[in-house]
Amino acid sequence: MADTVKYLLDESRMPKVWYNIMADLPSPPAPVLHPGTMQPVGPDDLAPLFPMSLIMQEVSTDREIEIPEPVREIYRQWRPSPLFRARRLEKALQTPAKIYYKYEGVSPAGSHKPNTAVPQAFFNREAGIKKITTETGAGQWGSALAFAGALFGIEVKVYMVRVSYNQKPYRRSLMETYGAKCVPSPSAETNSGRAILAQNKDHPGSLGIAISEAVEVAATNDDTKYALGSVLNNVLTHQTVVGQEAMAQLEMAGDYPDIIVGCTGGGSNFAGIAFPFIGAQLRGGKKVRVVAIEPAACPSLTRGRFAYDFGDTAHLTPLVKMHTLGSTFTPPGFHAGGLRYHGMAPLVSHVCNLGLIEAKAYKQVECFSAGVQFARAEGIVPAPEANHAVKGAIDEAVRCKTEGKSKVILFNLCGHGHFDMQAYIDYFGGKLTDQHYDEAELAMALAGLPSVPATV
Amino acid sequence: MADTVKYLLDESRMPKVWYNIMADLPSPPAPVLHPGTMQPVGPDDLAPLFPMSLIMQEVSTDREIEIPEPVREIYRQWRPSPLFRARRLEKALQTPAKIYYKYEGVSPAGSHKPNTAVPQAFFNREAGIKKITTETGAGQWGSALAFAGALFGIEVKVYMVRVSYNQKPYRRSLMETYGAKCVPSPSAETNSGRAILAQNKDHPGSLGIAISEAVEVAATNDDTKYALGSVLNNVLTHQTVVGQEAMAQLEMAGDYPDIIVGCTGGGSNFAGIAFPFIGAQLRGGKKVRVVAIEPAACPSLTRGRFAYDFGDTAHLTPLVKMHTLGSTFTPPGFHAGGLRYHGMAPLVSHVCNLGLIEAKAYKQVECFSAGVQFARAEGIVPAPEANHAVKGAIDEAVRCKTEGKSKVILFNLCGHGHFDMQAYIDYFGGKLTDQHYDEAELAMALAGLPSVPATV
Repeated sequence: MADTVKYLLDESRMPKVWYNIMADLPSPPAPVLHPGTMQPVGPDDLAPLFPMSLIMQEVSTDREIEIPEPVREIYRQWRPSPLFRARRLEKALQTPAKIYYKYEGVSPAGSHKPNTAVPQAFFNREAGIKKITTETGAGQWGSALAFAGALFGIEVKVYMVRVSYNQKPYRRSLMETYGAKCVPSPSAETNSGRAILAQNKDHPGSLGIAISEAVEVAATNDDTKYALGSVLNNVLTHQTVVGQEAMAQLEMAGDYPDIIVGCTGGGSNFAGIAFPFIGAQLRGGKKVRVVAIEPAACPSLTRGRFAYDFGDTAHLTPLVKMHTLGSTFTPPGFHAGGLRYHGMAPLVSHVCNLGLIEAKAYKQVECFSAGVQFARAEGIVPAPEANHAVKGAIDEAVRCKTEGKSKVILFNLCGHGHFDMQAYIDYFGGKLTDQHYDEAELAMALAGLPSVPATV
Repeated sequence: MADTVKYLLDESRMPKVWYNIMADLPSPPAPVLHPGTMQPVGPDDLAPLFPMSLIMQEVSTDREIEIPEPVREIYRQWRPSPLFRARRLEKALQTPAKIYYKYEGVSPAGSHKPNTAVPQAFFNREAGIKKITTETGAGQWGSALAFAGALFGIEVKVYMVRVSYNQKPYRRSLMETYGAKCVPSPSAETNSGRAILAQNKDHPGSLGIAISEAVEVAATNDDTKYALGSVLNNVLTHQTVVGQEAMAQLEMAGDYPDIIVGCTGGGSNFAGIAFPFIGAQLRGGKKVRVVAIEPAACPSLTRGRFAYDFGDTAHLTPLVKMHTLGSTFTPPGFHAGGLRYHGMAPLVSHVCNLGLIEAKAYKQVECFSAGVQFARAEGIVPAPEANHAVKGAIDEAVRCKTEGKSKVILFNLCGHGHFDMQAYIDYFGGKLTDQHYDEAELAMALAGLPSVPATV
């Protein structure tokens, strides 16, 4: 068999709907609460931040949500994305496993993020919105929204976590090339940012803080809405184009996954590849082992508590039930900035709590080592976030070798590392270390979780 | 009509042969001369540097050269590459022209260069070669050969022009991630490099010098061959997969180009898109206006002399007849490092001399301005080299508007700018200037061209 095996779907087979796992879950996730009343929020509570069309997707229990034609049209620039069989990696590992990877780095912004940035920009434009604020960690999300904003004529302002802003000037420049404005967070532009800076003027920032800043600006300006790159139900739903395509491509290959691996920060690329398969299983299909890989330095699924918490640090968001390290937890400044979030998408958390997925945490250096092995075998340099999925897939393939089992492994290579080469420079220069969070800080952050009436 | 229009060829329509324009030219290009004897070189003269299979391609006059199946197999990772209709750019320009671009940034190394790196590595491996040396400017070629070397198990050593080595650490890191070794040129590792450093220890380097270093190492080590990323006939021939695919894709669109635009450094991406169309014209097909865009700071076609010259600075290569600024000419350190070459591919020079193409020179800042306009309209950030083609295409589209003519423009977007974002940072920071070469240096370099007997 040939060493390069690519499965391309015809454009006519690009998904026409997003898949909403809410329709197939045995129980619904816990309701989102208003932090003042501790009562479930309604659509109107979210209206200052989002256009109503996205809010209705957020609460929808329909299995299928139609992808508007203008969104599909832009998807076509890079979708359907390729599925590859990693034959050269399999040979390097001498594994009897079959390894497939879905490659989302082919998008203009280099990751899966445009899958949701484009519909979010579209629905905002349909609602007449001219400005959108957002946060970004490593910059994948910020540059995806900047790209989408440029296409729909929407002004985009990005609060970028300061440590990543300094580590990744190329990502910032990409956002600016698309016409967006990008400022380091915490910034002096918002009450949330100023409060953090007052405590520590050199604060490295976190996604939680950057979300506070972006939400504050949207909530206090009538012409401005907010966009989130992960965590929300509708964002996860948008990403299911990934898994739906992968399912059709594996069918072309005559295979079905035994194991699905994805990296998890907020949870969107993971949900994107996994939810369509989990949904099929819930509807009576084949059981799949689904493994979420998170960074050991920010381990919400493996060390966090499944509890109600704020999505941001300044407590401007509603309360959501999720695996969380506490909204005041600040993870160390490791390179996979997209995974530096204190919480996990409520839907991923719920699915984890239902026993439908398992979670593992890996350290930074072992993930880069896996990424370099992958790059030399397959020719694609993964983003630091994606290296976690690569490491997870390689470990499963090695286990197959040990156990003499030929399983089918599917993982999501959610983005390329072109804008993250400083991390590889550090890796080869021996400067990359396994950073640890402060156990006392984690304990304090968990102790500070909001108390919610037991009746909820 | 939809704004995103992508033409994808089925994998089965990926070219099975490379197109060799030698078969269709009304006269052959001037012979390559041995600088000692001033007699045409034979295949054996080139054997220290290249495997015989590539040498035979270099001198072949067959119209079609079969692409070996192992090469096609690797091509399949990213080929056939997409052809896009730039509808959003057309709207932004309010032009009646149709603008199409072939996008070669989808390759793992992010440019058209793997189209020749892969076959070069393949033919070297078939010949039992274990090590290859090469030069690189901006790093596109070096990273492409590093990628190909990793796939075929060949050790790759890259001499990278010092100014680019310093400007583009991410490209260097990419080569290292693929497992190649990369040193700044001029280096202290070779006689050629040491001679330059003795004159100027801070010499910014040039492609001519880096070629000298790489050639010297290959010529003096039995187990080592040399690879060139442009200029040679066989390299240009490998790139014709680009134009062949574009022709089939335009047929799908029901169009044929009136104008083809490409940027020219050594000439390979330009030849890749243009030669199949020029060949069709020579065989009686439709006449196409073909425009080569070069940097005003290194204008071999528009300011150089069509004369015999060395391909490198230390005069280790044979003499080739080409448009040249003189082998001692050192262009300023502008960002489009891939276009900083004193000469032009002999085949492109010959075709220019035959009146089959025309040439234009653009300055750096106007090219970046065009690149940013393109990025905001089409979502793809071009490499600095490709910005020259973008600028050329935009100018032709604007002219169509002025003249009220709806022409079909095709250009080659030969690579993305992900590794070149420092140039965009400089552009937005107002630090990018239009650098000029020294007229006296150019005059001196031209005066120093080797004299060749008139009988040749």
